[in-house]
Amino acid sequence: MNVLLVYAHPEPQSLNGSLKDFAVQRLERAGHRVAVSDLYAMKWKASLDADDNTARQADTRFDPSLDSMQAFRNGTQSPDILREQDKLRWADAVILQFPLWWFSMPALLKGWVERVYAYGFAYGVGEHSDTHWGDRYGEGTLAGKRAMLVVTTGGWMSHYEPRGINGPIDDILFPIQHGILFYPGFDVLPPHVIYRTSRIDEAAFPTVCAALGQRLDDLWSTAPIPFRRQNAGDYLVPELTLRPELAPGQSGFHIHLS
Amino acid sequence: MNVLLVYAHPEPQSLNGSLKDFAVQRLERAGHRVAVSDLYAMKWKASLDADDNTARQADTRFDPSLDSMQAFRNGTQSPDILREQDKLRWADAVILQFPLWWFSMPALLKGWVERVYAYGFAYGVGEHSDTHWGDRYGEGTLAGKRAMLVVTTGGWMSHYEPRGINGPIDDILFPIQHGILFYPGFDVLPPHVIYRTSRIDEAAFPTVCAALGQRLDDLWSTAPIPFRRQNAGDYLVPELTLRPELAPGQSGFHIHLS
Repeated sequence: MNVLLVYAHPEPQSLNGSLKDFAVQRLERAGHRVAVSDLYAMKWKASLDADDNTARQADTRFDPSLDSMQAFRNGTQSPDILREQDKLRWADAVILQFPLWWFSMPALLKGWVERVYAYGFAYGVGEHSDTHWGDRYGEGTLAGKRAMLVVTTGGWMSHYEPRGINGPIDDILFPIQHGILFYPGFDVLPPHVIYRTSRIDEAAFPTVCAALGQRLDDLWSTAPIPFRRQNAGDYLVPELTLRPELAPGQSGFHIHLS
Repeated sequence: MNVLLVYAHPEPQSLNGSLKDFAVQRLERAGHRVAVSDLYAMKWKASLDADDNTARQADTRFDPSLDSMQAFRNGTQSPDILREQDKLRWADAVILQFPLWWFSMPALLKGWVERVYAYGFAYGVGEHSDTHWGDRYGEGTLAGKRAMLVVTTGGWMSHYEPRGINGPIDDILFPIQHGILFYPGFDVLPPHVIYRTSRIDEAAFPTVCAALGQRLDDLWSTAPIPFRRQNAGDYLVPELTLRPELAPGQSGFHIHLS
């Protein structure tokens, strides 16, 4: 299988850097082909802007969605965006690995999502009408592929538990797992979260690797998070609220799990 | 009062650009002093990296937290970071204005948070022990100041309602409002969210401005979101889980509201 690892950490000699190297080795030894997008090493351009369309007229108003659509359709996207889209098409599984900074992904990775997720590629796909609100949330260009987050954080696990002060880790990651990965079609596996990173010294490193290694070995057999598909009948259209008879009276992220 | 508006949109002639101009004018007419950090216009550097410490030794391993701490303590932070920290100290209220891209802030604004929120400034403040886990979540450098999000999105309001497919807007914004604004001490006002932006034409613009203008007029009288303060007795230390007798049996972001 083909695995794309999108990785964002500024220091190769960090825990994240070591885990990235370990993951590549583990996957390759299992016979997979691995591509790495090391965003810091690539000096990835984080800002979505008018330069992302190589053919746009300088004197016109820049519209992020419209320009993205035109560039995608006309084949005038910036070459760095094209390369990443090709990697996504090639991949059977995509891993996003990053340190949790301020309860989300690093800016550089967010900028990868914003620029690579073009209109027509990751959104604006399929019919958009009052009866079908696009091929998204379980359908789309990346359907049939698997995705998983590998996340490190300095905080304790208890701080991210259901009653922890930071909020439950599954809720913190919902905008990424549901909004960025499930949206264009990925089957999203439960995240692999590594807590309290300052305590991970050389002695503890093999244990951390063993846990990650197991997740990588299970990449094709792990059951995805059962997010509800938008177009499978669970939602009213075009309001896109969950039908009242499903999870009746409840609200919040968890009602979007079936 | 002093208001800092941190703004991230690539096109000045956009709805966001027009709303930013309107907000500045409205606040100034009310007698406030306004500073704007227009991150695209400033060509803000999004990536947190070793260059953020102007005095670090080239041959050492870069540690994001440790380097940030040393640069902050030793006065060797990059000048662009220093300027933004000075603006935050100067401000009585801070507004973050941005389009919601992939259910979070644009990468450029995330990179502003990551770099300006230095160790010793926005985190790593106060005693850190097994009985006091830092001055954070309601205490810290920015305590006594107000903050508010002004957010635009193309989606419909119903998509962001409690049972909407994207998840409730308050939960989507929790990692920002609680994790980025309340964390270093801000009193966080309810967000001002503008939905279905593609429908806002010149005829609708005055209505949109009137609603935003009202929120700006009320900046000093609006009640903040009642997030629970970490060090006011509601949490077990050092686990930092909500005491079992508070919101008993419940979990999720909402239990951190008192």
